[in-house]
Amino acid sequence: MDVPALVEAARAGAPRAVARLISLVEDGHPALREVMAALAPHTGRAHIFGITGSPGVGKSTITNALVSALRARGQRVGILAVDPSSPFSGGALLGDRIRMQDHALDSGVYIRSMASRGHLGGLSWTTPQALRVLDAAGCDVVVVETVGVGQSEVEVAGLADTTLVLLAPGMGDGIQAAKAGILEIGDIFVVNKADREGADATVRDLRHMISLGDRTEPDLWRPPVLKTVAARGVGIDELMAAIDDHLAWMQGNSTLRDRRIRRAGDEIEAIAIQALRARIGDLRHGEGVDELAGQVVDGTSDPYAAADSILAAVT
Amino acid sequence: MDVPALVEAARAGAPRAVARLISLVEDGHPALREVMAALAPHTGRAHIFGITGSPGVGKSTITNALVSALRARGQRVGILAVDPSSPFSGGALLGDRIRMQDHALDSGVYIRSMASRGHLGGLSWTTPQALRVLDAAGCDVVVVETVGVGQSEVEVAGLADTTLVLLAPGMGDGIQAAKAGILEIGDIFVVNKADREGADATVRDLRHMISLGDRTEPDLWRPPVLKTVAARGVGIDELMAAIDDHLAWMQGNSTLRDRRIRRAGDEIEAIAIQALRARIGDLRHGEGVDELAGQVVDGTSDPYAAADSILAAVT
Repeated sequence: MDVPALVEAARAGAPRAVARLISLVEDGHPALREVMAALAPHTGRAHIFGITGSPGVGKSTITNALVSALRARGQRVGILAVDPSSPFSGGALLGDRIRMQDHALDSGVYIRSMASRGHLGGLSWTTPQALRVLDAAGCDVVVVETVGVGQSEVEVAGLADTTLVLLAPGMGDGIQAAKAGILEIGDIFVVNKADREGADATVRDLRHMISLGDRTEPDLWRPPVLKTVAARGVGIDELMAAIDDHLAWMQGNSTLRDRRIRRAGDEIEAIAIQALRARIGDLRHGEGVDELAGQVVDGTSDPYAAADSILAAVT
Repeated sequence: MDVPALVEAARAGAPRAVARLISLVEDGHPALREVMAALAPHTGRAHIFGITGSPGVGKSTITNALVSALRARGQRVGILAVDPSSPFSGGALLGDRIRMQDHALDSGVYIRSMASRGHLGGLSWTTPQALRVLDAAGCDVVVVETVGVGQSEVEVAGLADTTLVLLAPGMGDGIQAAKAGILEIGDIFVVNKADREGADATVRDLRHMISLGDRTEPDLWRPPVLKTVAARGVGIDELMAAIDDHLAWMQGNSTLRDRRIRRAGDEIEAIAIQALRARIGDLRHGEGVDELAGQVVDGTSDPYAAADSILAAVT
């Protein structure tokens, strides 16, 4: 594999090169080390949006509307749809992506679905590396949208600079949000489908619950709660303005850098642990562990003493 | 903490000492290393049963019936109910345990509920260590029953010498079993509530699906499919006989030792990785990672090179 040529093509925005690099990430390919080293100087420019919310709140529709707004400004956009529960990936378009068809033929938009479960650590290191590829490929904005539910929503939000939490009226509202732990992670809350009954009550509930949090110090970001009807483009300008405000606020203090340092730390840690797992796995295949395990079974050793021997062997 | 005295009391079967040791396991207490070393020579005697199956098939009722049969033989029994989704533990009896009330006052039976999610690696190392405590405390049999659903069922089965897979008629039957991956893990299949309509069809389906597996070599164990009505004690003698047959078969070849070696290897590996995680965690608190992460954010390093530095520091 000619890594320098592939990286050069991806940096020029060639969709096939970008696709190839993300496939390497999904496969945990040995060339990733060289790829990431080559990409490093070209990263850190994209603004990463995380979009999270329960199924049915309109994540794809909002994403579609945001992409239109970003394209109208001339910005290049990457969209990464992460489905932690799906074994399918490799750039296959999800059914949901049909709603993205406005942009399917736009060369300024790169759309990718990615499965992550069961892949050498899941979200914790495949997704950040895919973001790194899209960032280096010149995307001004990358939208990470999770297709899964539950814990993965919170995890995906942790990968973003700006996290949008979507709700819809009558879908369980603020209480559900609090239960799912998403009140803490949202930088901007969006009540989509706001032409439905109950939208104002949902907005009120959310504002109330946010005011109960520890975010009332004057210098802290106070997450706005906006209303949209994304299918008709209503409220999207206001949402873009709120996103811009959030970016400006983060750039005006240490938040953007702090978040990125924490994320990079998580990524580094995940790669280090994966490398150690691989070394221990090699020991197991080489039967070094079986002998120790036999001693534990016989009661002549215990699991901690055996683990010490393993650690001595891999370190 | 006087570990030798605690271990001595647990070995004599004192329930409070056993409870205390299992709490140390749940807490990941530093004294575990000393505890496990002291227990090691006294382990390896208990026959570990794993009981798995969907909610509602009668796992607790079967366990109750098996305990009665084991007690009638004069054997001491430990029961570990693992709920990987619950944050509650510490020996609290689950609602389900009410059905175990036949044995709640029997000093030859030790019953414990254990939560494992979020605890330093979950099932992978807390449960084997709790089994080790019960084994050393003189239990002839330890029954591990999972209260959770899904993947945890398969994981719990992996901790046992003999895995019983329970089904009930009309609950989705063999196809569901195949989908859940439990056809591969069952040593004995039990169709409980066999007085209900469809029991014979479920037995037939299961036998057929098992015959399709790669278990047809004459020297391999061919998992029997039994019928029980555990609530009335029907079929329990036959089930005990099948369990005895399975133990004798495993002892007659290398299976018992092989399984235990594989299990001990998993446990050792989990402890080793946990120790490495802790070392990396210390680095993060000590800000050693933040500096590297800052270089990654600035594009002057990449996550792989940074992970190499972490590995050099912890190893």
